[in-house]
Amino acid sequence: MEMQDPRALTERVADLVREGADEDLREVLKEQPAEVLADLLEHADPSSRDTIFSAIEPHLAGETAALVDETVLEDLLEDIPTDQLVEMVSDLEPDEALPLLEEVDAETADAVLRRLDPEDASELRELLGYDEESAGRIMAFGAPAVTEQMTLGEALSHLRAAADELDELQAVFVVDSIGRLRGYLPLDALLLRPAATAVADVMRRDVTFAYTNEDREQAAARAQRSHLLAIPVIDNRGILRGQITQEKLREIAEEEASEDMYHLAGVAEDESVYTSFRQSLQKRLPWLYVNLVTAVLAAWVISLFEGTIEKVAALAALQTIVAGQGGNAGIQALTVTVRALALGDLDWRNSRRTFYKELGLGVANGLAVGLVIGLLVWLWRGNIWMGGVIFAAMLLNMTAAALAGFSVPVLLRALRLDPAQSSGVFVTTVTDVCGFFFFLGLATLFLPYLRGI
Amino acid sequence: MEMQDPRALTERVADLVREGADEDLREVLKEQPAEVLADLLEHADPSSRDTIFSAIEPHLAGETAALVDETVLEDLLEDIPTDQLVEMVSDLEPDEALPLLEEVDAETADAVLRRLDPEDASELRELLGYDEESAGRIMAFGAPAVTEQMTLGEALSHLRAAADELDELQAVFVVDSIGRLRGYLPLDALLLRPAATAVADVMRRDVTFAYTNEDREQAAARAQRSHLLAIPVIDNRGILRGQITQEKLREIAEEEASEDMYHLAGVAEDESVYTSFRQSLQKRLPWLYVNLVTAVLAAWVISLFEGTIEKVAALAALQTIVAGQGGNAGIQALTVTVRALALGDLDWRNSRRTFYKELGLGVANGLAVGLVIGLLVWLWRGNIWMGGVIFAAMLLNMTAAALAGFSVPVLLRALRLDPAQSSGVFVTTVTDVCGFFFFLGLATLFLPYLRGI
Repeated sequence: MEMQDPRALTERVADLVREGADEDLREVLKEQPAEVLADLLEHADPSSRDTIFSAIEPHLAGETAALVDETVLEDLLEDIPTDQLVEMVSDLEPDEALPLLEEVDAETADAVLRRLDPEDASELRELLGYDEESAGRIMAFGAPAVTEQMTLGEALSHLRAAADELDELQAVFVVDSIGRLRGYLPLDALLLRPAATAVADVMRRDVTFAYTNEDREQAAARAQRSHLLAIPVIDNRGILRGQITQEKLREIAEEEASEDMYHLAGVAEDESVYTSFRQSLQKRLPWLYVNLVTAVLAAWVISLFEGTIEKVAALAALQTIVAGQGGNAGIQALTVTVRALALGDLDWRNSRRTFYKELGLGVANGLAVGLVIGLLVWLWRGNIWMGGVIFAAMLLNMTAAALAGFSVPVLLRALRLDPAQSSGVFVTTVTDVCGFFFFLGLATLFLPYLRGI
Repeated sequence: MEMQDPRALTERVADLVREGADEDLREVLKEQPAEVLADLLEHADPSSRDTIFSAIEPHLAGETAALVDETVLEDLLEDIPTDQLVEMVSDLEPDEALPLLEEVDAETADAVLRRLDPEDASELRELLGYDEESAGRIMAFGAPAVTEQMTLGEALSHLRAAADELDELQAVFVVDSIGRLRGYLPLDALLLRPAATAVADVMRRDVTFAYTNEDREQAAARAQRSHLLAIPVIDNRGILRGQITQEKLREIAEEEASEDMYHLAGVAEDESVYTSFRQSLQKRLPWLYVNLVTAVLAAWVISLFEGTIEKVAALAALQTIVAGQGGNAGIQALTVTVRALALGDLDWRNSRRTFYKELGLGVANGLAVGLVIGLLVWLWRGNIWMGGVIFAAMLLNMTAAALAGFSVPVLLRALRLDPAQSSGVFVTTVTDVCGFFFFLGLATLFLPYLRGI
């Protein structure tokens, strides 16, 4: 229950790096567990990470690397000698070692694999063979399994005998004689029921599982609703291949949530606060250039109405209200829809009803916001026609916003694309272009009534 | 391993509701487990939810209610008779029953508590006494615990004897003679090591725990890094009071991620795709009104420069590019910062460095985007001064965006407020107001060179 002060450690290490006291640095790091070392590396100045990492004892370096943030790992493994990588990887379980091999080029990864213990190498090759976003890619080998024919006592002895081969014991699965998944054995039954009880009598057959080639997000969403801590992974023949542990399931849930939030905001999914300046710039700038195209498109729409604006300059101020509010309403609808798709809450059963609901919300919000801004503009500018134009434009644009906010992610999902990716920019492009067009178009139609305000 | 087709069930139930075939509906629902019933209610038409819910067998209704989405629960419990609520709650564990009592008014909740088994009522009162966002509020009583003095065999017998009182066995905690938390006993040790082994020899003392009055998000973030499935909850004297199970920990991680994403987009944290039209409207409209105030503020800034715009109407088109790109860059910085604060990745150790990094990114992105748009405008409008004005305004606004995107959430956190809440609207207000002011202000200064384009 003792807690370490991470601040003191971080500062001490920074001092030692500055002084070039390599020997002392090594001494200090030697006493720390891998979790602390990973946290230390993440919070250290990016320029000192290599020095700190090379002062970590070889047997701890692998475990530490397996725990650090992805972009920090990328920095650490740049130009790493193959020898050192082999040493780091050889002490790790295949599922822990995988991220390290994913970070280096295929040639280096291959060189490392050829020098590993053949069994580890073959398991790693199997993992690397699965699709990047698949459940198989993140599974751990050595899922604890017993057979239906055993008693609980036999099951316990079987598990004890196999203890060395086992991955973490978070769930015990039940298989048949050729290794096909049949169900699971609740741990409390195994611990608390008499040893003579048959496995078949206390096992649960309603087991949540994943296929090796299935999308990991889908599998994790299902696991969320199950009572299992770790879920079994089976191949197409039903054979138990491994398990996805609860740490991984938590990680996926967290990553997927970050991912959607990041994609909506135009941030790369692997950026974090630990990412170096250069990497961050490379990740953010392309998105800003994409946005620039849409901003220029919106500006072009406005420029079509320059003749109108010259006559009534007040339109230049009011147009941003229509476009901006449309954007806000669109992003609300988009966020609720993206999150519902991610959680599996929106499917064919409620999609039509949700479409009408969002459409209704667009109209209702448009009326409510349009009335207020219409009145305000009437009072501010002393022209009821101007109030009417902004009311009508707001109603139309909020309706367009609702349609875009709902339809863009649903269409992306139907096309088997990520519903969050770039959908924010699509939606705000619609609301900007429509907002400016509706407002300035209506103003041009009613121009005779708007002059001189 | 059998899977049900949820589509067929949903349609069958919808048909029976339409036909008013209550008896048949009851028959169909009787065969379903609570998870399926919860999913069914969520996906049903909101107007038919009450009919379906009242056709669920009383002993299943409570379990089902404990599983449904918060806004659906709100609908179901509206005007529910106290008798029925007592029946639903009485079969649930206190931590499962809590959301039901939170949804009804204090008077009804009190009436229910007075009719429950006194022990359950007192546990529920304890939970309700903790702060809404605290770890204590979501803990389950009956955390499995053994003492240091036991052998593994004794520990197992102790757990077996207490099996009825125990909450789920996801972790076994070790306490001293007066119930203070000392560590935990890894389940694989308990299962796989010889019965004569002393608990003290295999227990782990580096246990992650939560205080009853601690913020649940903080506790969950710590649990994330630990090896425990469920974490123990202790009071200020160190006494073990209960545990937070892994289902709850997953739920918190998911909720907190949704929450930040929702808050950034101006969506209420408890809105979902299942929320009824009326509730959604009530939740979204206030946010749009808040945004309207900031939109009017931005429009007012523009109106200060109407004299300039009258002379050069092209400014009305170009101003949106400066404000829009500032908003995009600000939201990028904001999203990375909010996520880092939520994950505990940003603290005093790297906040100054991160501030300078974001500032640098603002300047670098401003230069990169400003140069491109400056050149483009020069070519488009044939006026180098106009290109220069938009370049300078873009550089200034992207820098302001970076400062706002980083500072707003950090300041909110320093004030002990939610870093995500409303921060999107603060940041885009800054980038709109600054963007329009920088661009139109500079244009006014250089007006003689811009005329006639």
